[in-house]
Amino acid sequence: MTSCILSGELLHTLRAAGLRGAAYAALAAGSWTLATPAPAASTPTGHADASGLIGQVDAWRRAHEPAIVEQLDSLTRLKSIAADPAGRDAAADRLQALLRARGFAVRQLRAAPGTAALVFGSLGSPRATRTVVFYAHYDGQPVTPSQWRSDPFVPVMRNGPGAAATDVNWRERTGPLDPEWRLFGRAVADDKASIVAFLAAFDALAAAGHKPAVNVKVVWEGEEEAGSPHLEAILRANREQLASDLWLIGDAPVHQSRTPTLYFGARGSIDLEATVYGPLHALHDGHYGNWVPNPAVMAAELVSEMRDREGRILIPGFSDEVHEVPAAARAAVAQLPPVEDSLKREFGIGRSEGSEGLTASTLRPALNVRGLRSGQVGAEAANAIPADAVISIDFRLVPDQQPASVRRQVEAFLAARGWAVVSAPPDLETRLSHPRIISLSWDAGYPALRTDMSSAVARAVIGAADRAAGTQVALLPMMGGSVPIYLIAAICKAPIIGLPIVNHDDSQHAPNENLRLKNLWEGINTYAAMLGTLSW
Amino acid sequence: MTSCILSGELLHTLRAAGLRGAAYAALAAGSWTLATPAPAASTPTGHADASGLIGQVDAWRRAHEPAIVEQLDSLTRLKSIAADPAGRDAAADRLQALLRARGFAVRQLRAAPGTAALVFGSLGSPRATRTVVFYAHYDGQPVTPSQWRSDPFVPVMRNGPGAAATDVNWRERTGPLDPEWRLFGRAVADDKASIVAFLAAFDALAAAGHKPAVNVKVVWEGEEEAGSPHLEAILRANREQLASDLWLIGDAPVHQSRTPTLYFGARGSIDLEATVYGPLHALHDGHYGNWVPNPAVMAAELVSEMRDREGRILIPGFSDEVHEVPAAARAAVAQLPPVEDSLKREFGIGRSEGSEGLTASTLRPALNVRGLRSGQVGAEAANAIPADAVISIDFRLVPDQQPASVRRQVEAFLAARGWAVVSAPPDLETRLSHPRIISLSWDAGYPALRTDMSSAVARAVIGAADRAAGTQVALLPMMGGSVPIYLIAAICKAPIIGLPIVNHDDSQHAPNENLRLKNLWEGINTYAAMLGTLSW
Repeated sequence: MTSCILSGELLHTLRAAGLRGAAYAALAAGSWTLATPAPAASTPTGHADASGLIGQVDAWRRAHEPAIVEQLDSLTRLKSIAADPAGRDAAADRLQALLRARGFAVRQLRAAPGTAALVFGSLGSPRATRTVVFYAHYDGQPVTPSQWRSDPFVPVMRNGPGAAATDVNWRERTGPLDPEWRLFGRAVADDKASIVAFLAAFDALAAAGHKPAVNVKVVWEGEEEAGSPHLEAILRANREQLASDLWLIGDAPVHQSRTPTLYFGARGSIDLEATVYGPLHALHDGHYGNWVPNPAVMAAELVSEMRDREGRILIPGFSDEVHEVPAAARAAVAQLPPVEDSLKREFGIGRSEGSEGLTASTLRPALNVRGLRSGQVGAEAANAIPADAVISIDFRLVPDQQPASVRRQVEAFLAARGWAVVSAPPDLETRLSHPRIISLSWDAGYPALRTDMSSAVARAVIGAADRAAGTQVALLPMMGGSVPIYLIAAICKAPIIGLPIVNHDDSQHAPNENLRLKNLWEGINTYAAMLGTLSW
Repeated sequence: MTSCILSGELLHTLRAAGLRGAAYAALAAGSWTLATPAPAASTPTGHADASGLIGQVDAWRRAHEPAIVEQLDSLTRLKSIAADPAGRDAAADRLQALLRARGFAVRQLRAAPGTAALVFGSLGSPRATRTVVFYAHYDGQPVTPSQWRSDPFVPVMRNGPGAAATDVNWRERTGPLDPEWRLFGRAVADDKASIVAFLAAFDALAAAGHKPAVNVKVVWEGEEEAGSPHLEAILRANREQLASDLWLIGDAPVHQSRTPTLYFGARGSIDLEATVYGPLHALHDGHYGNWVPNPAVMAAELVSEMRDREGRILIPGFSDEVHEVPAAARAAVAQLPPVEDSLKREFGIGRSEGSEGLTASTLRPALNVRGLRSGQVGAEAANAIPADAVISIDFRLVPDQQPASVRRQVEAFLAARGWAVVSAPPDLETRLSHPRIISLSWDAGYPALRTDMSSAVARAVIGAADRAAGTQVALLPMMGGSVPIYLIAAICKAPIIGLPIVNHDDSQHAPNENLRLKNLWEGINTYAAMLGTLSW
């Protein structure tokens, strides 16, 4: 446990209210559990009791909203990003302590010293016949703090999502928190909210005397946003401990209609950073601008040759491995509430790429240009030919596409277009002997995965989610975003279903990431239904 | 005079060598003049005496190399860039003092309070019949210090141009400085070297008892790199004072063959910064990357539609005002020493744009992409659709092209391609009602100018330059770079000839700008020939 995070005011209030001893200490240490769970007295809960259970969880949550938010605030302050290994390790230690306080056996699994820990916890339930792994990642995307309205690692509550939203001093609020409020900070939604929802659901069940209906395993990964470079090694090395009947993936947002959501697959991913070389150093573009090749122009041309404005990928062979979207997936998409018009307004866009709807578009592969950088713009712009241009791309892959194939196709395309493809900055002789040079840096990438939506376990998960929501949840055949679930499927041989809880408009992977409180409240119910009622 | 810039060590050495009184004080104040010029005793110098005069100047320079470099070092330390008005004003004050110390009448001309001063000096020569204005600018391009090897405003001498060059402590050198050494710093070449060469030539002539052959006027501009926004107003308001028979423009580098050079025109210029709008804020590209339009892709496509990889401008009508290059200009270009192969090696490029040679290419208009910026690359790259993309462009114009026409053609081209052209960030309703939105920010720009190469004054200047160089100098019909000489021609009605002295490989407008000492030495001779022998 690295520090006491609950605010002094809140602790004072709770202490004044008569909270004492071990419960107070646990709360101050970042666990809000008010009573030690009494597993011997608790019982699994059948479907018939589910609505009562959800009611109990709801009531518990209403009584503990500030402590739940404090937990999320506290986790967000730990800078668990790739650029800050110490912050990442502190977060792993905190998570380990939180699980241990709830009776879990916990280990930090690492592929090698100095790499990010995967926090693994397990807790058996005597009469349970199924084992479920709850996955989330505790690392966040990189940040560009200057683009944030406030420090990415000092959470701020605001009364809404936009620039007009104002800060809220939620710790001074008496009564329930406004469910439309949002907490802003890196990783607050992606995925620390899922971790907090899991913990709150666990505690709510315990407080109500319910024990989990399944054996519970927890996998909290620490480098998902860096492409999960060590997940495979960790999974392979710990296959037996990780044995289970189901993985539930607490990553990604719910459908844009704000309906609670499940997803049954995710696109794969491979990242590419390409550097196009111009002259050895920037040159006066008045004296050389029609003669020395301009790498910004070369990069622009290359982007245009790879992808058109409708999102179609123009690289020959790129779609050779892409198959038709299955009819069941198309049917599930057709049942989703339409969101396109409201999203255009929300995003301030006058058109969309392609002619299909949003979710259908995510069933195709994508070439996303996430960054372009050459020379200078604005006040720093100088009349110079830049020395290079950098294109940062992430490809999203659909089932049956292999990262290695994508890499091969891109490199063949570049060679056919006359590019000399290198993997490091070229030396002078290389420069002089090739008209166009590009260096490529690929990550390992991973393929997509699609899970059968009609299996017994899928039906059980859908039923539990429906019970938690009190309505039919949205079923997505495949997330547009990528999580490395292909690896889990390949190594752990268990069905994998996505259990997202956060709002779609959470600015994840962007400045001002945020979590809408109502999503956290609904997420706690969903997690409670999975923990307390899941059976098949 | 803002500060004493000569190093303490050097001053100590000079004082120890017996330097005393007024001469010492002048040196310490930034002027190396060792003896007060005695105008009454000096005489103009005819052609017959020219080689003797150049020999005297050479000898004086060899005796004063450290003080000349110290002068340039000292001027470079004054941060005369647009982003630092105080540094710019300090430089103007210093220049004023340097001219006054040489007997010039000096005024700082401003278009309005708070704008950059144009330092104007004049010094009559009793028997002279011609008046020559010596122009240079003392402001430098913007800097991105992180891209420099050393502080742009703390000059460093190195033994060569490249990354392998090592620092040289030139102040401890005994004997002549190596002419291949280079001084690095912003504006050291563009144009402070021309200012220092003028001052040194003036002092060398005075030391040898020669008085100028012409009435001398000096115009040192303070915002040329910002597009000369107030030059027109200043020229119009001071037309009579600026009356002359010739302007010599001490800006731009010599020919790449390192031959001393004159130029007889310069391209015009107009700058454009364009912002392409994507979603209101960056969005997860896994969830939205095939549906929300990507502004980086839109910007890349736009660049490719405006300019091809050979430098051809694809904007319809763009070349309507462009006429054939005159035969005399083509003939002058044909006589230049070939430099293309050595430049390819120097710049590390395996090809050039277009099929013509370098100088011929600068006789065409150009569209230079000087910056592209969208999203993030490298370690900061996040899997997000950027909110916008910025393209920074400068157009180079040839004679008869008008900046206003370029602007009209670009805007018509964009409209025809379906862009809504705005001049400020669009509001939500504008965003929703247009599929593609671009905001444009133009500077005022200025047209090109071409000077008759066969007039009496041109022949006189060529003759003086040839005498200084001891060989035939390179004659360029038009500089690729832009200087606002069209304004001078339009308002001051005098012929304008470019008198560049700095090395072509000076990294002007780029990091690590530098001046090769040999260019400064040759430039002093050329200035001395113009000051001491010019007549027509």
